[in-house]
Amino acid sequence: MDCLKELIREVPDFPKPGINFYDITTLLKHPGGLRTTIDEFARLFHGRVFDKVVGIESRGFLFGPQLAYAFHAGFVPVRKPGKLPADAVSEEYALEYGTDELQMHRDAVEKGERVLIVDDVIATGGTAEATARLVESCGGTVAGFGFVVELGFLNGRGRLEGYPVESLVRY
Amino acid sequence: MDCLKELIREVPDFPKPGINFYDITTLLKHPGGLRTTIDEFARLFHGRVFDKVVGIESRGFLFGPQLAYAFHAGFVPVRKPGKLPADAVSEEYALEYGTDELQMHRDAVEKGERVLIVDDVIATGGTAEATARLVESCGGTVAGFGFVVELGFLNGRGRLEGYPVESLVRY
Repeated sequence: MDCLKELIREVPDFPKPGINFYDITTLLKHPGGLRTTIDEFARLFHGRVFDKVVGIESRGFLFGPQLAYAFHAGFVPVRKPGKLPADAVSEEYALEYGTDELQMHRDAVEKGERVLIVDDVIATGGTAEATARLVESCGGTVAGFGFVVELGFLNGRGRLEGYPVESLVRY
Repeated sequence: MDCLKELIREVPDFPKPGINFYDITTLLKHPGGLRTTIDEFARLFHGRVFDKVVGIESRGFLFGPQLAYAFHAGFVPVRKPGKLPADAVSEEYALEYGTDELQMHRDAVEKGERVLIVDDVIATGGTAEATARLVESCGGTVAGFGFVVELGFLNGRGRLEGYPVESLVRY
């Protein structure tokens, strides 16, 4: 979607030198850009059925509830440790140096439910993969991954082999 | 909206002893609860015109883009320091002990634009008030505040006097 790409701002050296950051705030602040992003995101999965949409903190929250609404599904947040108030399951994932952790309420996804996992960007795929493990540890089935931006050169898709993966804008 | 209240989970002593946390994840995971929340939230402001909807990190992200879509507006995130990649304005707000800070991209809101500010909960109103100052420092007009949950006993509404304030569920 080249019309969306034109609305994404590239910020060099953020959050650190040598990294080119794809800033979707310029896309979201444009009424037509926001509308097209949501409509096209939903169209990527047209005709499929999901029980839950899972969004990864915090930019996955920008799209998850809206897709859940579109698919008549419920929305489930995956958060950093200490943010969820009730009993939660945890999964670790690797960072460049060390590890980090994601959590999901244990009662958020039920056995056999079909789940769509969404985030703004897929880079190396580490958080997406950890989120799939959270869903599966509760008995859910990961029926798809959706991203606004895919950094193809980092091959996060390779890490999600076997799952349907869709994205709107590729670099 | 008592039907929404029934879907909100009360978690005692979170995040610390003596605090009763109103957990909206149980509302969001329910397809009908999510749908009614969004529809009624939009209905609170029916007939009004907004150029931008501003959502406060991170639970304001759950509702902001969807309301922006409904009002044919753009969406703008207000974030904690260090998260926004481009030039940003900052405002401090008071915590129980000390202060914290919120930021918004300087080019996110233009002079004269009418802005709706949304968040999941209004408690003391400190972050909402700081967000209004961010919008006004860029020349925008705060045309309304919308919250899913209002903790009336903390009187955050008193702090937002002069602005239209709407909420779906009150405690």
